Amino acid sequence: MIHFESDYLEGAHPKILQRLAETNMEQTSGYGEDEHCARARALIAEACGVQAEAIHFLVGGTQANATVIDAILRPWQGAVCAATGHINVHETGAVEATGHKVLALPCEGGKLSAGQVRACHAAHWNDATHEHMVQPGLVYISHPTENGELYTRAELTALRAACDEAGIPLFIDGARLGYGLAAPGTDVTLRDVAALSDVFYIGGTKVGALLGEAVVIVNPALRRDFRYMIKRHGAMLAKGRLLGIQFETLFEDGLYFDIAARAVNMAMRLRRAFADRGIPFYAESATNQQFPILTHAQQARLAEKYVFSHWSRVDDHRDAVRFCTSWATTEENLAALIADIAAL
Amino acid sequence: MIHFESDYLEGAHPKILQRLAETNMEQTSGYGEDEHCARARALIAEACGVQAEAIHFLVGGTQANATVIDAILRPWQGAVCAATGHINVHETGAVEATGHKVLALPCEGGKLSAGQVRACHAAHWNDATHEHMVQPGLVYISHPTENGELYTRAELTALRAACDEAGIPLFIDGARLGYGLAAPGTDVTLRDVAALSDVFYIGGTKVGALLGEAVVIVNPALRRDFRYMIKRHGAMLAKGRLLGIQFETLFEDGLYFDIAARAVNMAMRLRRAFADRGIPFYAESATNQQFPILTHAQQARLAEKYVFSHWSRVDDHRDAVRFCTSWATTEENLAALIADIAAL
Amino acid sequence: MIHFESDYLEGAHPKILQRLAETNMEQTSGYGEDEHCARARALIAEACGVQAEAIHFLVGGTQANATVIDAILRPWQGAVCAATGHINVHETGAVEATGHKVLALPCEGGKLSAGQVRACHAAHWNDATHEHMVQPGLVYISHPTENGELYTRAELTALRAACDEAGIPLFIDGARLGYGLAAPGTDVTLRDVAALSDVFYIGGTKVGALLGEAVVIVNPALRRDFRYMIKRHGAMLAKGRLLGIQFETLFEDGLYFDIAARAVNMAMRLRRAFADRGIPFYAESATNQQFPILTHAQQARLAEKYVFSHWSRVDDHRDAVRFCTSWATTEENLAALIADIAAL
Amino acid sequence: MIHFESDYLEGAHPKILQRLAETNMEQTSGYGEDEHCARARALIAEACGVQAEAIHFLVGGTQANATVIDAILRPWQGAVCAATGHINVHETGAVEATGHKVLALPCEGGKLSAGQVRACHAAHWNDATHEHMVQPGLVYISHPTENGELYTRAELTALRAACDEAGIPLFIDGARLGYGLAAPGTDVTLRDVAALSDVFYIGGTKVGALLGEAVVIVNPALRRDFRYMIKRHGAMLAKGRLLGIQFETLFEDGLYFDIAARAVNMAMRLRRAFADRGIPFYAESATNQQFPILTHAQQARLAEKYVFSHWSRVDDHRDAVRFCTSWATTEENLAALIADIAAL
Repeated sequence: MIHFESDYLEGAHPKILQRLAETNMEQTSGYGEDEHCARARALIAEACGVQAEAIHFLVGGTQANATVIDAILRPWQGAVCAATGHINVHETGAVEATGHKVLALPCEGGKLSAGQVRACHAAHWNDATHEHMVQPGLVYISHPTENGELYTRAELTALRAACDEAGIPLFIDGARLGYGLAAPGTDVTLRDVAALSDVFYIGGTKVGALLGEAVVIVNPALRRDFRYMIKRHGAMLAKGRLLGIQFETLFEDGLYFDIAARAVNMAMRLRRAFADRGIPFYAESATNQQFPILTHAQQARLAEKYVFSHWSRVDDHRDAVRFCTSWATTEENLAALIADIAAL
Repeated sequence: MIHFESDYLEGAHPKILQRLAETNMEQTSGYGEDEHCARARALIAEACGVQAEAIHFLVGGTQANATVIDAILRPWQGAVCAATGHINVHETGAVEATGHKVLALPCEGGKLSAGQVRACHAAHWNDATHEHMVQPGLVYISHPTENGELYTRAELTALRAACDEAGIPLFIDGARLGYGLAAPGTDVTLRDVAALSDVFYIGGTKVGALLGEAVVIVNPALRRDFRYMIKRHGAMLAKGRLLGIQFETLFEDGLYFDIAARAVNMAMRLRRAFADRGIPFYAESATNQQFPILTHAQQARLAEKYVFSHWSRVDDHRDAVRFCTSWATTEENLAALIADIAAL
Repeated sequence: MIHFESDYLEGAHPKILQRLAETNMEQTSGYGEDEHCARARALIAEACGVQAEAIHFLVGGTQANATVIDAILRPWQGAVCAATGHINVHETGAVEATGHKVLALPCEGGKLSAGQVRACHAAHWNDATHEHMVQPGLVYISHPTENGELYTRAELTALRAACDEAGIPLFIDGARLGYGLAAPGTDVTLRDVAALSDVFYIGGTKVGALLGEAVVIVNPALRRDFRYMIKRHGAMLAKGRLLGIQFETLFEDGLYFDIAARAVNMAMRLRRAFADRGIPFYAESATNQQFPILTHAQQARLAEKYVFSHWSRVDDHRDAVRFCTSWATTEENLAALIADIAAL
Repeated sequence: MIHFESDYLEGAHPKILQRLAETNMEQTSGYGEDEHCARARALIAEACGVQAEAIHFLVGGTQANATVIDAILRPWQGAVCAATGHINVHETGAVEATGHKVLALPCEGGKLSAGQVRACHAAHWNDATHEHMVQPGLVYISHPTENGELYTRAELTALRAACDEAGIPLFIDGARLGYGLAAPGTDVTLRDVAALSDVFYIGGTKVGALLGEAVVIVNPALRRDFRYMIKRHGAMLAKGRLLGIQFETLFEDGLYFDIAARAVNMAMRLRRAFADRGIPFYAESATNQQFPILTHAQQARLAEKYVFSHWSRVDDHRDAVRFCTSWATTEENLAALIADIAAL
């Protein structure tokens, strides 16, 4: 079987493994205080236009979300997010485990708008009983969203303005940020993400690393004692160099962006194959995830040779499914899949 | 500088890196449901004499402690441990973050006795106001302890009996379990640990892995829905194979035990060097950690060439310090250190 | 101004004050272990057909909800409830503060159906990624609901069956239970509530007491160590007799039921007044709360003399508002209001 | 039997009951926003020399402690307190339930010194691994302590200075504050308590009220959104007037101070009786609680007629026990007890 069901099917980009091997016998400090972490921080800081001290390396996305949100919110506050947001649906209540409600707003397709943020904030403060309700304390969005949608720079700028008016921080989950930045047609750069958010992270796990997310706390007011929070969440890796070396490798020659661009390019070819065959899509994704709507028969046919994810039931006869590309997708496998789609 | 300050200074045992490279392009399921994790579970199950389904792989020790304790306790219960226990001192309140009090008992040197457990349990239930106090809900010990001390099989058996009488589980933190099992003079085997505890874990991070702890939930009554707990704690690695491959490598040819034995052997030679020089020890450790008591002058002399950890102030002139060996300690560095100790 | 905005505007039913005065100099044990609490428990147990040990007295509704839910759920579980449920909207995240997600389901008018419970349970367990989602751990309903709606005995029986199939407990918030039991047309008795739920409470605060809710843990499996939970939640009143004496008074001669019946009777007269004037209602309430939909002009007119609550915006010209009756509503005030409604 | 085992054996001071009866039919807003609460706040503000908005009324002590501490601390911080402190021992982990460690320091007799606070703070920040430890985030003391001991003004001033140096707030649990202020020989006034703490509370439950603690948030920086915290902790009483009316009554003519003075005067007579009989004391208490050390025989004799509390085992033959006086102690009962002590 050929696997397309996710973007974390293989190990790490070979350069990362090579670098791990090269540095293996170096003796370094633990807990992220080694020179590799320092250099990775410097490289990312340069790429984002922020200070190196803004950057912390965590192991995974759920961990990063819970740690950041727990650090930002006061106890009586919640995280505003789209109802389809990862923290609302797929993290087994990791945010609630820290005592905070996820204030889920119904959304068309996974994107939150500035208007929704303003309305949610106004509804809270205009309600005479607001002390009886969880106070909106931050806005959480993903870029790309769960469905591969992207914010435009104008949309992010508007969200930023809405957050500023409300006096609450904007947190961007970038578990697949690389793919979003590499998407054809996007006008959002890494520096834009840094300039328009209070906190965001650059996902490594799904973009070539074995594991690791680089959290960037752009807003200095939110940086205080963050390493305590990392430790308290069980997220401080003893051999922190493992994260440093990976992000160093990903950011020193633009590998992160190259990997993402290659995967997105492959996804676009895949998309074209579905479109050419007249197959509609569940979501408009210009990223490495594609969500064609397939009939049961089409699914059965492709499932003989390929693994892909069930995403969402559409009607009695059809489901949205997910195909992902990544740094590890081979030309050979892609070509086979494209040919089989054409033959559907 | 030559580093002896901890046992997580280098990367991973070369065999692990090699195996990661060999398996890199395999496509596997995420979240610990791949074949490498399955094989690692089978190998560990065999080594421990438990069922494979008892075993889960987590990333780090603090995370393992908090996740296990949170899974075992009911909200009104706390974890009984030695005052020097890692969960009480060095985890930034990760247990309290889950809502549970650490019931710290003063201990000579880090070991908890069956008598203390019995007394703590009796004191709670005999107090007329016990509902106003946190109920002892599990016993947490480390083997080896923070100071490298070891329980005997008789001591563990007695603790087990005390826990059974009290009706509360026994949880053994095995972050350095390998070193404990390899210690000269110990009568405790891995199968003993499994037979005498309700839950324990086999530390990988400090015994040759890049990262990873194998949690063994011996008691089937405590296994329910544990994967939810892992996810909720942000501890479910997307590329779970990274843990599986490492433990597979460590357990398929006894590498885990070999690594530990070699490091302990080196530590014994280091110990002898200090003892021959007439230097006393802070704790009786037969493991890879040694805690000589050095004068300020002795520390200054060694610090010219070696890095070691400050452990505890002893008096105005002396401190206990820590030297660690590991799989990565070289004969050359050890010989140099031994020579320099002799010359103190 | 004459107040109709809530049912907790005045102190306590005069019989309660009298009893507090009569017993004031008695010396009793603290923390709910006095004879008044014992007698109140016996009276309620008799009324409900349960054992006296099922019953605990707490101070308020939010406290009762959070304490009960925290006692029932395991960490990875959440409370299924209607999106309009009090725990989801109006308790400032008191449930999330205990680490649990509220699994809010969209509902017509505040009632949850057996079908919804079944669907929610099935959706969770049928999802291949269910370990990544919060597990439904109990069902929370209010009787009456926030909008004064009532379950029929058949509906409660169906919910009970759905909960049994799912293996999860049913918790009924009875902050206004008295009014629900006194509603014209209801076929649900107190004994039905006890027979069909795992836990429920009998609200005192809104039905004649100064404060206090009688929690009835019908299911013995959920009773363990509940007093620890009360204390841990800061909910164990030192002078617990204050709660015991009140519930003793309310339950020894049926005062609780008489108070509720009188208030509901008054509410029905109020309802008729609105209906006679052709005013529609936001919800079909046969309880002490009425939710007429008034134009802005109608609101302005009534607001000259009466205080009532804004409930929900209906359109640009109209809002749903709330009028409540209680044990303390006077015939004189009711008559005045009815006359003024007729004159609208 | 005549009861001396606690100071919450009876109902409320008769003036409070009378006032509750007089105001019973008034219609007031809920949740502490009524005129009685406003007037009580004004009276207490005047007595303390603080602003009225500093004051909130909560139901009980454990609730007040958990709510205040949860509002002050950031997640990675803990509450420094004496090992014997109420929050450390007798609140079933209510502070840990909010995610915070109680940093218990061993103390002679229940009082914490400025030196201990300084040492604890220095030890934390001087430790190279401080991010791995819970950060001291506030200092909690009780005045009087659990054993009836009192801080002098100089001691409180020194604690204040130590807290200022450390940059952490000082929180004073005043569950029995009235008795402390009325103690012979104390130089601490209510205004001193307000001037030297960041937050404190004036206990009502043990000083004449049915229930209620008046929390005074002296430091404006800690006041933000405190009502959300009250609600989130299930501590916002619907009929908040019940607390307002009681504190209004206690503070309008100095009743609070009169009650406390009378009880302390009685306790001093009781103390003299024990001392005259040659009986030693477990703690030097100048408050309403007395802790004589009685032989088993003496205990048995007194237990024929009186109820008192066991406090602490002293040796094989003797225990410390507790006798309390209160507003409700009668001259007749006191005289009987004194006579029986003399006859021991």
